[in-house]
Amino acid sequence: MNAAAFEPALRWTGEALEVLDQRRLPAETVYLRLDDAAAVAEAIRGMAVRGAPAIGLAAAYGVCLAARHWSRVLGGQAGPWRTRVAEDMARLAASRPTAVNLHTALAQLRPLIEAEPPAAPEDLLAAVSRMHDRLREADRAMAEAGAARLAPGARVLTHCNTGALASAGCGTALGVIRAAHARGLLGAVYATETRPWLQGARLTAWELGRAGIPFQLVCEGACGALMQQGRVDWLVVGADRIAANGDVANKIGTYTLAVLARRHGARVMVVAPTDTFDPTLDSGAAIPIETRAAEELTTLAGRPLAPPGTPAWNPVFDVTPAELIDLIVTEKGVIEQPDRAGVARLLALR
Amino acid sequence: MNAAAFEPALRWTGEALEVLDQRRLPAETVYLRLDDAAAVAEAIRGMAVRGAPAIGLAAAYGVCLAARHWSRVLGGQAGPWRTRVAEDMARLAASRPTAVNLHTALAQLRPLIEAEPPAAPEDLLAAVSRMHDRLREADRAMAEAGAARLAPGARVLTHCNTGALASAGCGTALGVIRAAHARGLLGAVYATETRPWLQGARLTAWELGRAGIPFQLVCEGACGALMQQGRVDWLVVGADRIAANGDVANKIGTYTLAVLARRHGARVMVVAPTDTFDPTLDSGAAIPIETRAAEELTTLAGRPLAPPGTPAWNPVFDVTPAELIDLIVTEKGVIEQPDRAGVARLLALR
Repeated sequence: MNAAAFEPALRWTGEALEVLDQRRLPAETVYLRLDDAAAVAEAIRGMAVRGAPAIGLAAAYGVCLAARHWSRVLGGQAGPWRTRVAEDMARLAASRPTAVNLHTALAQLRPLIEAEPPAAPEDLLAAVSRMHDRLREADRAMAEAGAARLAPGARVLTHCNTGALASAGCGTALGVIRAAHARGLLGAVYATETRPWLQGARLTAWELGRAGIPFQLVCEGACGALMQQGRVDWLVVGADRIAANGDVANKIGTYTLAVLARRHGARVMVVAPTDTFDPTLDSGAAIPIETRAAEELTTLAGRPLAPPGTPAWNPVFDVTPAELIDLIVTEKGVIEQPDRAGVARLLALR
Repeated sequence: MNAAAFEPALRWTGEALEVLDQRRLPAETVYLRLDDAAAVAEAIRGMAVRGAPAIGLAAAYGVCLAARHWSRVLGGQAGPWRTRVAEDMARLAASRPTAVNLHTALAQLRPLIEAEPPAAPEDLLAAVSRMHDRLREADRAMAEAGAARLAPGARVLTHCNTGALASAGCGTALGVIRAAHARGLLGAVYATETRPWLQGARLTAWELGRAGIPFQLVCEGACGALMQQGRVDWLVVGADRIAANGDVANKIGTYTLAVLARRHGARVMVVAPTDTFDPTLDSGAAIPIETRAAEELTTLAGRPLAPPGTPAWNPVFDVTPAELIDLIVTEKGVIEQPDRAGVARLLALR
């Protein structure tokens, strides 16, 4: 795979973080320049940047922006500097609730903030740059490990967007699909449109089209018929948070697809870097699930889809129990038939 | 229930058929005037009028328009008249493939066309008017019979639009919800948005709002989480064709909801007049399933949702096997745990 084959979700200019504004895709390819932590938090909250690994990395760059800003304002006053940076980190942490990668990234930087003396802004930036490299390399490793599990002719269904737009490198689940395509393994690719935000129609279709990977878009409602007709071998998805027992929170609709997969003998592969695990949560029941505004369902680009004032329930993630998952592919290895012991073993690896 | 409480999907003016243009709802309430069979066929094909009972009835009025037109053109020449009317009936029959009500309605009129001498246009119109009354009364009977099966506090999920807009009276599945609301039985109503045509967001939300029935819209992807949280007692849906063994073709996504219902102990009620049964088909595998243009998925009101040229698979119905269905409610009675014998018994009733 050629790194130039995809548009990165985010890039550091040396002075600011630029994120590809995913609200405007596929119509326009526009990078937003973010100069401070508040702007990064707002870009995450407003979904200009989304996808669990990408928002973790964006938040980490947000910490770099905060550190630099408060160093300039406060000079060498370590105490006030630490307080202000911690406030910005709290703001970043609160931007979206479900993806744990955000918290994982902030936790990885916290010792540098809390050190005595605290790390200099350039040292923080060097740490985030290493994180970026590590996540990019994780994508590559997962893509190869996931593709290695597919038999020739594999027919794959994917949900939401888990590509370069959602991550630091080639993507998670979509990275597996890219690698499988490069190996000539794919019999068919189906991508859900992914209501309500249409990550599949807008973003995955855009990435697959640019990569020259043949696919068909389907609405979520058609996935039952697709599986009933025996046209899916693997459901390949990403994750926003994985609990200690292997339960997976991911884009709303994932659970339904996993239920259908089990009924029809399709296998379920979750592709996520280890930053996505939250071993502090006993099971998926403890994962906080974000519910967003009804308007994301009842309007599109400001135009009404439903009568004005129509009430809607709009949870944007759901939890797939570990028992419905065949493989969790990480950069450290693959967990088969995930359970508490399998998760613990993987996370204990260095 | 008050008949004035809903806008009819179609009305006969004495001279023409008027159909409420469902492509323009909820933004505008506009009736299209249809003066000949070709216009009726086009209104069905283009989904200005939709819903299995409504398109059956619209086609029947289309036959009246054909009979009147060819009587005027051909005077008393029974042979050429019969040929021309039969051509128009074939055009109506070909307008959409899945809902059998279209064919049932045409079959009910065929003896009048083929009689020697053929029925006069006013006699045909009288027959269609009786069909309209009978379907309206069937809706009422099904609404009461279905509501009688719900316990107080019942939490109901419905899919697509099965209300007055889809039928001749108060609707099929939505008629049950109207009757249950009138009895004060409902604990909650959830309506799917129903991609790709958004019948739920545009039409069901409009009907429920006008009827003052509290509800929440959900995307299909959220129904797994809804059921997982134990928030659904009944899935209540309509049907487009029911095979001899009780398999049900209905709006794409129904099968997925039925699979989820079975997993989570929710019951499944199909509400459909007996015109929806096709005893000539052994099982659901034989039901022709309409696939519509990719653009219905990739664009909305002419605006792109996905990159131009994105390929899509857009089947608009799926088949739910009888084993996943608890009740089929018809105007002649209720089939419990539907199977071949139960369907045969019901259809043998006068």
